[in-house]
Amino acid sequence: MKLTILGCYSATPRTFTNPTSQVLEAKNHLFLIDCGEGTQVQLRRYKVKFSRIKHIFISHLHGDHFFGLPGLVSTFRLLGRENELHIYGPKGIKEAVTLLLKLGDSWTNYPLVFHELDSKESELLFEDEKISVRTIPLEHRVYTNGFLFQEKPAPRTLDIEMARKFEIDKSQFNKIKNGADGLSKNGEVISNKQITLPPPKPKSYAFCSDTVYKESIVPIIKNVDALYHESTFLETEEHLCAKTKHSTAKQAAQIAKKANVDTLILGHYSTRYKSLELFREEAQQVFPNVELSDDGKIFSL
Amino acid sequence: MKLTILGCYSATPRTFTNPTSQVLEAKNHLFLIDCGEGTQVQLRRYKVKFSRIKHIFISHLHGDHFFGLPGLVSTFRLLGRENELHIYGPKGIKEAVTLLLKLGDSWTNYPLVFHELDSKESELLFEDEKISVRTIPLEHRVYTNGFLFQEKPAPRTLDIEMARKFEIDKSQFNKIKNGADGLSKNGEVISNKQITLPPPKPKSYAFCSDTVYKESIVPIIKNVDALYHESTFLETEEHLCAKTKHSTAKQAAQIAKKANVDTLILGHYSTRYKSLELFREEAQQVFPNVELSDDGKIFSL
Repeated sequence: MKLTILGCYSATPRTFTNPTSQVLEAKNHLFLIDCGEGTQVQLRRYKVKFSRIKHIFISHLHGDHFFGLPGLVSTFRLLGRENELHIYGPKGIKEAVTLLLKLGDSWTNYPLVFHELDSKESELLFEDEKISVRTIPLEHRVYTNGFLFQEKPAPRTLDIEMARKFEIDKSQFNKIKNGADGLSKNGEVISNKQITLPPPKPKSYAFCSDTVYKESIVPIIKNVDALYHESTFLETEEHLCAKTKHSTAKQAAQIAKKANVDTLILGHYSTRYKSLELFREEAQQVFPNVELSDDGKIFSL
Repeated sequence: MKLTILGCYSATPRTFTNPTSQVLEAKNHLFLIDCGEGTQVQLRRYKVKFSRIKHIFISHLHGDHFFGLPGLVSTFRLLGRENELHIYGPKGIKEAVTLLLKLGDSWTNYPLVFHELDSKESELLFEDEKISVRTIPLEHRVYTNGFLFQEKPAPRTLDIEMARKFEIDKSQFNKIKNGADGLSKNGEVISNKQITLPPPKPKSYAFCSDTVYKESIVPIIKNVDALYHESTFLETEEHLCAKTKHSTAKQAAQIAKKANVDTLILGHYSTRYKSLELFREEAQQVFPNVELSDDGKIFSL
């Protein structure tokens, strides 16, 4: 998995930061997560191929997470897109995008499929043989979901050295890869496990923004490789969390610790703070493995 | 009048150009004209004070002219705006902005007044004692207006040298500024014209984008100091104008010539061309005084 941060700051516009948007590359997919204003320019800046984006996940309908979507949908048309685009987001997203396109008399020439969400339980949004995507119900001022991307276990791979050792003929290799036992030169049955290697551990990524501290997400994101959790504030501004429904860096770290994740990635910083390092320092008091997202930063999971 | 170009390129997103938006400073107003995606960041970049914008004019509802509007309206709220904001644009603009704010449960805390347009005739949109704004009906793929900003003649100013020459007492100066004749030391009546100077010529600016070549705008924009006229294409692509309802640089120049404007400012360039100078060269074959708009460029009229 490769995660590219296109924007990770909260709403106040600035010339050198961008609102929330990320691209997750996994199992031959390019998933776009949130789409704040200016996302299409950020996609250009980081040379993301527009046509490879087939699924867009929108956490909630605040402007800094979705006002870039109508422009991107329009641009896909301008670029002559033909393949399907799936948009997953809160109920109302279809009406909004449809109205804006209709007003500009510029409906798409490619199939645009909306998947509107209103469940308060975690639900499966997308699945193929290699990966699945589900919602993580969050709690913010409006209906909000995070998203959990989970690779599925790959099949075991052929252990070519062991296959040679048992003098197994090449003609059996495909069957063995599919789970069959092997037959050695002298007719002995060699169990599949002896001549294959375990697959790499499937990776998982959880995106959680925007949200107040919410322990009920812990079972959903348990043991993920990377958790992006918003940290709009530092502890000194914790009193603002209840009203604005945001979290502190420390609270993000508490969630990471309880969920036993591998890496915590912080983001959605309020623009009031002078240095991002303050967020890392605060979080590391609770949880050691903390990364700071920043616009243009790439994480390899 | 001071015109700041925030963006002047057509819709294709690029990292180094912006879609249409301009700020016109005139008679103590900051008028925002069109609001493509990213306009709020451009406003920040060029240090335009957000709170001074009280009137926004939207030519038409294509994304590259208005997808920055919902974000800007939301940001005004975030910045604690209290004074009225007037938005002038095609019918439907109210529904669009209102829906997006409603979905984010973030209605404004300042008075937001929509003035929806659907007339095909030029109409007065705004007027005070010093300036007026009217529509310029254009022809594009959707309902579109340009905007004409016209200063009103200022009163004549006191000619202090002549007033001294006629030995007119200071106590009369305010009356004279308001049009009264003066009385010299020896009781002679001095006509107002003798002791005042003519005011500077009122300035005018016409914004015309997007539009196909349309001669019927000529009487409306006659003799303006500056005409911004779109030139999406060069003459080599003139065959695209009928379908896309855009103009060439040469056509823009023909309109400028017929309207006897002082300066023609070109813009809304298609991103297919290597150099903007090609637009100037083509236009100057028809009309001499041609300027090229570019993002961040300022014109003093």
